[in-house]
Amino acid sequence: MSPLSDRILMGPGPCNPYPEAVAALGRPMLGHLDPEFIAVLDETNQRLRTVFGTTNRLTFPVSGTGSAGMEAAIINVLGPGDVVVIGVNGVFGNRMCDVAGRAGAEVVRVDFDWGTPVDAERLLAAHPNPTAIAMVQAETSTGALSPLADIGANKGDALFIVDCVTSLAGTPVELDANNVDIAYSGTQKCLGVAPGLAPLSVSDRAIERIKPKPQSWYLDLNMIANYVTGGGARAYHHTAPISMIFSIHAGLAVVLDEGLDNAITRHRRCGTMLQDGLEKRGFELFATEGFRLPQLTSVVIPEGRFGALGEGEVRRTMLDRYGIEVGGGLGDFAGKIWRIGCMGHTARERNVALLLAAIDELSA
Amino acid sequence: MSPLSDRILMGPGPCNPYPEAVAALGRPMLGHLDPEFIAVLDETNQRLRTVFGTTNRLTFPVSGTGSAGMEAAIINVLGPGDVVVIGVNGVFGNRMCDVAGRAGAEVVRVDFDWGTPVDAERLLAAHPNPTAIAMVQAETSTGALSPLADIGANKGDALFIVDCVTSLAGTPVELDANNVDIAYSGTQKCLGVAPGLAPLSVSDRAIERIKPKPQSWYLDLNMIANYVTGGGARAYHHTAPISMIFSIHAGLAVVLDEGLDNAITRHRRCGTMLQDGLEKRGFELFATEGFRLPQLTSVVIPEGRFGALGEGEVRRTMLDRYGIEVGGGLGDFAGKIWRIGCMGHTARERNVALLLAAIDELSA
Repeated sequence: MSPLSDRILMGPGPCNPYPEAVAALGRPMLGHLDPEFIAVLDETNQRLRTVFGTTNRLTFPVSGTGSAGMEAAIINVLGPGDVVVIGVNGVFGNRMCDVAGRAGAEVVRVDFDWGTPVDAERLLAAHPNPTAIAMVQAETSTGALSPLADIGANKGDALFIVDCVTSLAGTPVELDANNVDIAYSGTQKCLGVAPGLAPLSVSDRAIERIKPKPQSWYLDLNMIANYVTGGGARAYHHTAPISMIFSIHAGLAVVLDEGLDNAITRHRRCGTMLQDGLEKRGFELFATEGFRLPQLTSVVIPEGRFGALGEGEVRRTMLDRYGIEVGGGLGDFAGKIWRIGCMGHTARERNVALLLAAIDELSA
Repeated sequence: MSPLSDRILMGPGPCNPYPEAVAALGRPMLGHLDPEFIAVLDETNQRLRTVFGTTNRLTFPVSGTGSAGMEAAIINVLGPGDVVVIGVNGVFGNRMCDVAGRAGAEVVRVDFDWGTPVDAERLLAAHPNPTAIAMVQAETSTGALSPLADIGANKGDALFIVDCVTSLAGTPVELDANNVDIAYSGTQKCLGVAPGLAPLSVSDRAIERIKPKPQSWYLDLNMIANYVTGGGARAYHHTAPISMIFSIHAGLAVVLDEGLDNAITRHRRCGTMLQDGLEKRGFELFATEGFRLPQLTSVVIPEGRFGALGEGEVRRTMLDRYGIEVGGGLGDFAGKIWRIGCMGHTARERNVALLLAAIDELSA
């Protein structure tokens, strides 16, 4: 084993996982049909329902990372002949279009400036009767938060598909109150667990619209439901990623022991401290005021701020000297913005204080 | 955390993982673009090449379980207009047909009795010029081993796709010597790692035939290759499952420190001890003699062998009283055969001795 570096992970994810979630990775292995494992899985799913704010029975962690959750959310209900309206204000809305297009659906793409939220009115006006309306609640590429309530309330017969990868447990998602039909997330953000699973929740209304044979066998929710919600008889589909499920089970316990509202408040407190600290130091925040995610802050890096060091060199210096990881910009904003995450176990004042101190030390 | 049971996992997988692989799950988290993580990933891929017996540059762990590896192996190179000949001698050959059919390929299915190997002559004769020929080397549903060499040598222009989920590191796979173009495996079998990743290896010849836009975004090898084999510049695709990659990295080190040949010999020694022990006790082995996997033994359960206890009750008693998990039959063989795995860290004589002792105690 090579020497171990102990990073402070303030990029767009993974965050530092909760120690309890790390410890649970080492629980003795169980078979995927062992009654004791099924009990852990059932409890995990119940905890996910609480965090998602839903009673959806089909709520479970998909055996892949957040993007596998996106694909599961889309390809089970969209195919040739279907129309999906997708709000795009960053990389992940764009990815949704790619996934839906590959599934053969007609994609009506509604673009918004990066850093701004998805506007409900424009999204709702884009098509008279789409099969689904999809958007990202918390754009990881820009740090923008898009409200869900107006779209959920006015979506008509369409299914409402929402990317909650960066929002879940850091910002209220409240699927049932917001009338969301399918939502997915990732473990490595505000849930404070290693990357590798994609919590997914599907309303009964959406279950009725699942295709009999979606293009993916691995993500076929008809078959997976027989395993994850099968009651006494669990039909084997694929071997569940046992250790990762032990870990999310424990990570969710941390969140719920703290209290979901308290965890959300903690993310907000750290995000506010960071954003205030950056503005006080003359940095311009990238996302539109009033729609800034506390758990993921995007900030413009002014030319010359760090003397001769380019922004990539500064990030590399922070990694090497302080062990702090900060994320760069994506797409057109590569080299122009940083994305600073403060999620899960990373969301503590001491990490914000250290990052601001490091920025001060490196500033020209 | 609920009380922890410490099982001896002698089902068809997961096995008990190597302690070193478990410990590595707890390595401090790194970001997926951290140079230290990229080094671990590169080393993992090099170790996988050794275990696969290949120089294929596109060799890496897919971010999903073995079935995600199957889907990645198929949907990247097969679609509408393609013909694939698939040998089916159990559940996993059947699953290949399902996956290829969903991808829109024409499936020429060649069936063999369960428990028997795939016959090269019949497979090669099934179609004059298929796009691909696919089969399972080690059928986890029956314990049958199918030879690869004749098919590899005579496949012509077809791509040769092989399921090595249960074979890798327990039976020689030797991709390059056997002329295999695409192979996938799982971590929870003879590699002795928790389930959750699917090692995949793709020949340069197969890379040239990857579709420009496969139906799955998550499993699109064009994009994934830019991350896993990108040299200095790694393009973000999806967040890698960091902790699981730490774990396979360590599990592969265990296998290679022991020596791949020695690990294979150990699996064979344990399998022979088990199969001899079962025959000595009057059990009939299910798979055809000469084609029996040492790492996965299928055995017929004679009516009345355990007195009034049905086979399911016996397995449950073994689990409760001895903490031993044994797998039941699948499909038509549910309730008729057991599948006894002896893979990874489970492949030790003491486990075989204990299982045989437990069978003796429970026999009528």
